[in-house]
Amino acid sequence: MASSDGSMERRSRRRTPARDSPPAIGRRAERYRHLANPFVPLRVLSDDEVESIHLDALALIESTGMRVLSANARARFAAAGGEVDETSQTVRMDRAIVERALTTAPSQLDLCALDAQRSVRIGGSQVAIAPVAGPPNVTDLERGRRPGSLSAFQDFVRLSQSFDVIHLLGPCVEPQDVPVQDRHMEVTLAQLTLADKVPWVFCRGHRQISDCFEMIRIAHRLEQSQFRERIYTYTVVNTNSPRQLDIPMAEGIIDFAEAGQLTIVTPFTLSGAMAPVTIAGALTLAHMEALVGITLAQIVRPGAPVMYGTFTSNVDMKSGSPAFGTPEFTKACFAAGQLARRVEIPWRSSSATAANLADAQSAYEAEMSLWGALLAGCNLLLHGAGWLESGLSASYEKFILDVEMLQMFAELFQPLAADSAERATEAIKDVEPGGHFFSTTHTMQRYKTAFYQPLVSDWRNFGQWSEAGGKSVTERATAIWKATLDEFAAPTRDPGTVEELTAFVARRKSEGGAPPVT
Amino acid sequence: MASSDGSMERRSRRRTPARDSPPAIGRRAERYRHLANPFVPLRVLSDDEVESIHLDALALIESTGMRVLSANARARFAAAGGEVDETSQTVRMDRAIVERALTTAPSQLDLCALDAQRSVRIGGSQVAIAPVAGPPNVTDLERGRRPGSLSAFQDFVRLSQSFDVIHLLGPCVEPQDVPVQDRHMEVTLAQLTLADKVPWVFCRGHRQISDCFEMIRIAHRLEQSQFRERIYTYTVVNTNSPRQLDIPMAEGIIDFAEAGQLTIVTPFTLSGAMAPVTIAGALTLAHMEALVGITLAQIVRPGAPVMYGTFTSNVDMKSGSPAFGTPEFTKACFAAGQLARRVEIPWRSSSATAANLADAQSAYEAEMSLWGALLAGCNLLLHGAGWLESGLSASYEKFILDVEMLQMFAELFQPLAADSAERATEAIKDVEPGGHFFSTTHTMQRYKTAFYQPLVSDWRNFGQWSEAGGKSVTERATAIWKATLDEFAAPTRDPGTVEELTAFVARRKSEGGAPPVT
Repeated sequence: MASSDGSMERRSRRRTPARDSPPAIGRRAERYRHLANPFVPLRVLSDDEVESIHLDALALIESTGMRVLSANARARFAAAGGEVDETSQTVRMDRAIVERALTTAPSQLDLCALDAQRSVRIGGSQVAIAPVAGPPNVTDLERGRRPGSLSAFQDFVRLSQSFDVIHLLGPCVEPQDVPVQDRHMEVTLAQLTLADKVPWVFCRGHRQISDCFEMIRIAHRLEQSQFRERIYTYTVVNTNSPRQLDIPMAEGIIDFAEAGQLTIVTPFTLSGAMAPVTIAGALTLAHMEALVGITLAQIVRPGAPVMYGTFTSNVDMKSGSPAFGTPEFTKACFAAGQLARRVEIPWRSSSATAANLADAQSAYEAEMSLWGALLAGCNLLLHGAGWLESGLSASYEKFILDVEMLQMFAELFQPLAADSAERATEAIKDVEPGGHFFSTTHTMQRYKTAFYQPLVSDWRNFGQWSEAGGKSVTERATAIWKATLDEFAAPTRDPGTVEELTAFVARRKSEGGAPPVT
Repeated sequence: MASSDGSMERRSRRRTPARDSPPAIGRRAERYRHLANPFVPLRVLSDDEVESIHLDALALIESTGMRVLSANARARFAAAGGEVDETSQTVRMDRAIVERALTTAPSQLDLCALDAQRSVRIGGSQVAIAPVAGPPNVTDLERGRRPGSLSAFQDFVRLSQSFDVIHLLGPCVEPQDVPVQDRHMEVTLAQLTLADKVPWVFCRGHRQISDCFEMIRIAHRLEQSQFRERIYTYTVVNTNSPRQLDIPMAEGIIDFAEAGQLTIVTPFTLSGAMAPVTIAGALTLAHMEALVGITLAQIVRPGAPVMYGTFTSNVDMKSGSPAFGTPEFTKACFAAGQLARRVEIPWRSSSATAANLADAQSAYEAEMSLWGALLAGCNLLLHGAGWLESGLSASYEKFILDVEMLQMFAELFQPLAADSAERATEAIKDVEPGGHFFSTTHTMQRYKTAFYQPLVSDWRNFGQWSEAGGKSVTERATAIWKATLDEFAAPTRDPGTVEELTAFVARRKSEGGAPPVT
């Protein structure tokens, strides 16, 4: 019977090649450690529109300004020539101050990891990927949804360490079973002992930050003066949109800039709620706020490592619920990438979904985010693996699904070879019409590494898949994260260093730790 | 507590705007009837590489040729100057014959629907979308997987008719309960009476095709001579890769070209199986085969409507199973779009997945296909809704998930307005720092139509979603397709026309119908 796209007839000619199974996962995975995006960024704004948003943002900084709750930060702005109204805590600045800051902000950032092979370059066509950051809850198919714990945090460090397509560590889940004054140290200890990728530090007050910096310095066996010469950690500072910079965020910018560590200034602008209902308006607001944060970092220390972060999405206008991976989110990514290139600062975007299960919705919303971020030229993708429920839960299964999706992008970023041998005209001549290429020399020379081998996708036919239990990809992901954790081995660490870290944590705990600043 | 991207703090400021719910689905849906893709196509090949593939394909047509099983088709090639070896049934052609065909193939195609508003333009930046074509089986969550039936076929016609983002009808599932000699008439009758979009006709022999053309002519109330002056239906012709053109396919090209109806010539080239293990090789083979099919159509009738189809993916080299929506599939899309533009013929691509459930894998593989096809500039997306199991089942739930994904693209294709009013600086000035935009005039004027309202995505928070049953998006899709079918009303059709169609079918059945040609 004739068919559409051979869906019926082609089955009869398929057969199983009798060969050893292709390994090559390891080799491929190492290619994922440093990713360069080969695609020309997509555009949704004209150059004039980009310029108009930039100029509107500068005008807002001059005329309307931003409320800065930190007196220390206000003083820094004032010293740099900003106009500060202490009554309303408003900072206004001439655009010249912002423009100067943009000239000192670096366009390329090199983050040093404990394992030099895990060090990360950010900027240009480079893409670095970090896992989900910040959820209070954790969830998996077997244990359900529950408050985050230190044990879960450690699991996510292990998962982040295990996949080469994840380049940085992150605060994947809030360990609510650790007292708040000690929490920053426990999460830093987990990152420094279970992994060798670049760790994250939260901005929850000066004392917490200095504890974490000290631990990272110990782990790297650096002198105090050495620590501030290179980038060893990173954080995200969210503005409190619209137009407000809270105390721990402002002081985080200052502490990170002084220490030469990376701050990603990210307005979280939900169009229709904390930002205008238009995407262009939400981006104008975001641009203004990001420039103020970036300017503060450059005032504190010209050349301080900063990134331009965007997290613009929309809400459901019926319920006010945030939505992610929407068409508006994707379009905002394309526009935000253009704005970041306008100010020539490396750009951070996100993968996100509002789904409450690691189901098909979570996948298509994540894909809309990923394509938006990556085709817009993002340099750092945050929330790259594990994000669920609009960021309120870290999901073990979603982590695995996301790694699969990210690895597919990592493969897509590899060039398509099209030289004479790849065009394979000799092989084409050698195979009979209606025949197959399974056993040709051309195939035999290449089959082991020809194609991406998936992590959790199942390509078996319906019968084989049914016999194997008929599991959804989400159910299969459970087995993958379990096996990954079972097989996990922490990187070897100098015992003296671990002892010093542990002693530091014990001492600081006995001193009362450091409660978060709000 | 400080947070990452506001995931904890922002919740307290969210509230439900007390407003009537935004309708606007209808208004938005109408925009989906004619889609233009605003993005510059992505490239993975250099111009030189494109040219090399094109020249290699022409050289293969000259030197190695293609086996053409239809004597009629071989005679047509011979009459046009091709070199035919009747013993091996091989056709070889000088490139000049192919190049001449490429000059007569139209670059734009206008397909006439029964409702003129459903007519479809193909070419340029226009994107038309057709549903899944060809599965022998049908599946849904309630009834499970079963052989395709006429009743299921009719359901998929109703679903295809119901969503404006689906522009054409298709052979969504094979009605195995209808005798093969009558099947073509029953599916054509269903398309012509339940819908008013452009119908599909299979190439399963001259007599079947002429029956279907006659029915379409009756439905449009055309004279015989009028029918061949415009395009009223379309088909896909798959080459039997490598390098073979089967009888019903070759004769389909001839019949469609003579009648001025649209043939999409699509080599189904699975890299590593029926095509070289390299993507560049698979595309060289596909390009060669597509050019031979297109040339046949142009020999038969210069100016005959044809499309350049590509369906290149890879197999799992362990099992030989086909895979879809892989990184290789996406990369092949980008390259194939470049090849189609090289020959200046409208290009057809696909959405596809190897998943056996409408789960997250089905979604991320579909997304990889969609982004590949659409960013490569495809003019017709086949298998756009309902494809599951590598094309072996049509899924009711997957159809709904696909429509959601397609509608998101339709929204993404709308321009991002960024004029002064959209940049919203006045609204930004008016809202207090840390406040919200819910009640601003700027929001009130726009909120009803500001954002895409999803079909099946659920943006409620975990608590509300759990209280509502905690269903996956796939489970929710069941309710959507049921409601769509429940609410379905077929377009009004002239009773005389329906009577004439029914009488035609009854007569032809009594004459023995038309068994398929293989």
